[in-house]
Amino acid sequence: MPIVRLALAQTNPVVGDLEGNRKQILTAVREASNQGADLVVFGEMCVTGYPIEDLACRDSFIRAAESSLATLAVELKEANLGELAVVVGCPVFASPADKSGWAIAHNAAIVLRAGVELGRYHKHHLPNYSVFDEYRNFVPGNELLTFEHLGLRFSTVICEDIWQEGGPVAQIKNNNTDVTLVLNGSPFEIDKDDRRLALVKALAASQDTAVAYVNLVGGQDDLVFDGDSIAVNAGGDLIARARQFATDLLLIDFESKTDATELQSSSTVKQDDDWQAYNALVLGLRDYVNKNGFKSVVLGLSGGIDSALCAVMASDAIGAENVFGISMPSKYSSDHSMSDAEDLAQRLGCHYETQAIGNLVATFENQIALGDTAAENLQARMRALILMAKSNSEGHLTLTTGNKTELAVGYSTIYGDSVGGFAPLKDVEKTLVWQLAKWRNTVAIAEGKIEPIPENSITKPPSAELRPGQIDQDSLPPYEVLDALLEGYVQRRESKQQLLQQGFDEATIDRVLSLVDRAEWKRRQ
Amino acid sequence: MPIVRLALAQTNPVVGDLEGNRKQILTAVREASNQGADLVVFGEMCVTGYPIEDLACRDSFIRAAESSLATLAVELKEANLGELAVVVGCPVFASPADKSGWAIAHNAAIVLRAGVELGRYHKHHLPNYSVFDEYRNFVPGNELLTFEHLGLRFSTVICEDIWQEGGPVAQIKNNNTDVTLVLNGSPFEIDKDDRRLALVKALAASQDTAVAYVNLVGGQDDLVFDGDSIAVNAGGDLIARARQFATDLLLIDFESKTDATELQSSSTVKQDDDWQAYNALVLGLRDYVNKNGFKSVVLGLSGGIDSALCAVMASDAIGAENVFGISMPSKYSSDHSMSDAEDLAQRLGCHYETQAIGNLVATFENQIALGDTAAENLQARMRALILMAKSNSEGHLTLTTGNKTELAVGYSTIYGDSVGGFAPLKDVEKTLVWQLAKWRNTVAIAEGKIEPIPENSITKPPSAELRPGQIDQDSLPPYEVLDALLEGYVQRRESKQQLLQQGFDEATIDRVLSLVDRAEWKRRQ
Repeated sequence: MPIVRLALAQTNPVVGDLEGNRKQILTAVREASNQGADLVVFGEMCVTGYPIEDLACRDSFIRAAESSLATLAVELKEANLGELAVVVGCPVFASPADKSGWAIAHNAAIVLRAGVELGRYHKHHLPNYSVFDEYRNFVPGNELLTFEHLGLRFSTVICEDIWQEGGPVAQIKNNNTDVTLVLNGSPFEIDKDDRRLALVKALAASQDTAVAYVNLVGGQDDLVFDGDSIAVNAGGDLIARARQFATDLLLIDFESKTDATELQSSSTVKQDDDWQAYNALVLGLRDYVNKNGFKSVVLGLSGGIDSALCAVMASDAIGAENVFGISMPSKYSSDHSMSDAEDLAQRLGCHYETQAIGNLVATFENQIALGDTAAENLQARMRALILMAKSNSEGHLTLTTGNKTELAVGYSTIYGDSVGGFAPLKDVEKTLVWQLAKWRNTVAIAEGKIEPIPENSITKPPSAELRPGQIDQDSLPPYEVLDALLEGYVQRRESKQQLLQQGFDEATIDRVLSLVDRAEWKRRQ
Repeated sequence: MPIVRLALAQTNPVVGDLEGNRKQILTAVREASNQGADLVVFGEMCVTGYPIEDLACRDSFIRAAESSLATLAVELKEANLGELAVVVGCPVFASPADKSGWAIAHNAAIVLRAGVELGRYHKHHLPNYSVFDEYRNFVPGNELLTFEHLGLRFSTVICEDIWQEGGPVAQIKNNNTDVTLVLNGSPFEIDKDDRRLALVKALAASQDTAVAYVNLVGGQDDLVFDGDSIAVNAGGDLIARARQFATDLLLIDFESKTDATELQSSSTVKQDDDWQAYNALVLGLRDYVNKNGFKSVVLGLSGGIDSALCAVMASDAIGAENVFGISMPSKYSSDHSMSDAEDLAQRLGCHYETQAIGNLVATFENQIALGDTAAENLQARMRALILMAKSNSEGHLTLTTGNKTELAVGYSTIYGDSVGGFAPLKDVEKTLVWQLAKWRNTVAIAEGKIEPIPENSITKPPSAELRPGQIDQDSLPPYEVLDALLEGYVQRRESKQQLLQQGFDEATIDRVLSLVDRAEWKRRQ
């Protein structure tokens, strides 16, 4: 029997950067070819980046994507890679008869060999729940693609196709498939556990096929793709698994659907939840900075836990030398606010300066008479003004340090602390902020390094310090209760009745639900 | 033959205000009953308001909607209205077998008589283009509802069902329908012309039926429903037409599908495009203010055309006594900026004050050294700080005065002039701003009133006044060219090639396309 060497190329494309993405593909193909690969499979939409959202409905964008695909075919031909086949993801025009209203393109997988197209597959199941809106933007396909290559038979499907019942996936076994190639753009979720592996194993069993599941990696706006590409044989044994949160190239020798071996066993094991969450956040932050053309970030350092964790993540993402922290004390700021902020900056080795806001606020209040809330908000907004001015003058991206819990209950000043180019903690509830801060310090200790986050920032009661002696729990329930309630109401979309049954106090439920509903307009901004 | 008196109730529901919406419905039903109506038809989702977006997938919301519907049935029964039937729009739970992933409910029309449900219809065609995302959030239905009432046969469908081919609409004729009731949530578009009337006439002809087309009216977030409800007979003759941009109640006596008469002929005629555009904007602004619980607005008055038009629209929407204008001159502001702003305020009779920003900016710049762009942006942001402080202190909604053209090319300062609770001109290109300003002055003259907008604000070259002597055309092409280009590139999604063919200059195309693409991140905020 022939042995086919399959490469799973886990790349990090940038939405809209067609030339850069093509270079990534060619680089990975050459690397795979040097290692003797016969077939290289990439993630979903690796040619354009993913998700392309409404760009999918723009004629000029699909034209450019198809043109980049054609250029790639020429470049692959000129590279003289023999029998090497390549499977890439790219949007392609649907035939005029299939276009439906808004959508003009398929989400496709294209098989190329020596510059010649062997076939293409059009994604059948188009997800339109949660973060996805593909049903709106793509035309669905209906036919499985199966092709022969060096004596083995390969079928191709895309991502959601294997999460839903029916459709082309059901034809894999009938088509005598040896290996099913699944191109994915599957975002990281902290609670996803190992559902992907279970799903891939189930597919192997139900369709009697080996499966090569290739995911993208990298942050794209609000999403983080975690990689974690997987290969299993038809018996459902895990053959190889790629790294999470980093590009990777897996090489597997297939003699048959049941007989497969990884070339150099990387023996990647899944890390724990804290490691995954922290690395997802760091990758999302790094890619947001890089993909938007920034080299550095600026953020306010309050001495509190949110800004401390943001600064540490930013240092891990782009290097402490590219992180600019500014302490902006007011007359209500406690001494420890400044000392904790400075301590943090010294531990990290990031840039640090102090810009007191007292004089700025006083000048403003002398000219314009304000009520209490307006005066509190003014402090937050004056700080935002300083950060934006620094960002503008020195070219930094501004980081917002607000967390998911604050966003949910509207515990922030609109255009004050909610201001910024990127909010690293927007999907991290307050209790998880503490947990990750402690985890990150533990990692530092384990590595024999200095703990980046001052103990005091972790242990002191959280406070916005907008009034003398104010702490968050004056106006909010304890964060453990608050986060658990929000999880039920927002995440699981439970009703008040269901929350009461779980033992939450009625007054607390009413207070939190009303805060969430009232904060809706702040979040929409 | 019996005569059935049909009432088309054009109401203005508020999304989520179930009690208020129910009161609107009852009030309209009583009014119709007093006028002898036998059947009252409302717009789409009049029970919950429309669009409810992702609320449609929240179990507790659908439960509350069904409960409000049940309460309405009881209240209608207790009102002792005899044989009077009522058709309302409301989301209802789909049967468990029909639920698909995210969606749990139908977009339904329910027929009630003396508190008893005669039947319900589930919307079949769920639009998911442009502003709509219903396919994601609702479960489609497949069956036409036809019911008999006082000797005539009525069929019921919802909005998009009559814009698409196939589905239950095709059964109307087979079901021997006399009058088809269409419940709509159809937003105003300035270029919609009279497509609705044409469509309703086509439906009458193809299915041999009279048609009662009832639309909602009112602003809801970014949308404005314009009313303009219509009744035609089976011969395609227009029998009655409701007002645009106001609640209304049409009464029509049907003897048969071909024999129908309006009770008191309102002889509403469609007004011209400028009237429609201006009234849509005023209604959208008024409802945004009211539905979000505000009573007054604050905005910066620069002496320019954008802020002038905003102030006039706000005065028309909620009364000049509830409009607070602030002139915020800098050292670069010309004398006419202040005099034109003050002139405007006097013409309108709105509140007016001056808050110079020179001292505030100087204090800031003395403390923090800034580059040129940062210094320009600081002026815009300091103005925003003043508006937000006033909004906070005095409880006004802040209006942003930026127009659609500026938003498209990113000609605004993020968190500066782009700040605000509502942007009345966000869908109005700059050339239309001038056109509407001139139109509004003409209306004032025709009514023998003072022209609200100073001639100078209309005629002077537009300038952001962030540098000495700066005018917009230093960095932008003429607005006539710019708006025409944006119409092609953004609205019609044309490519550079198509724009070249229309005769636009290549350098101008490149410059504008690059501005639009780079401004994407500002718009996403």
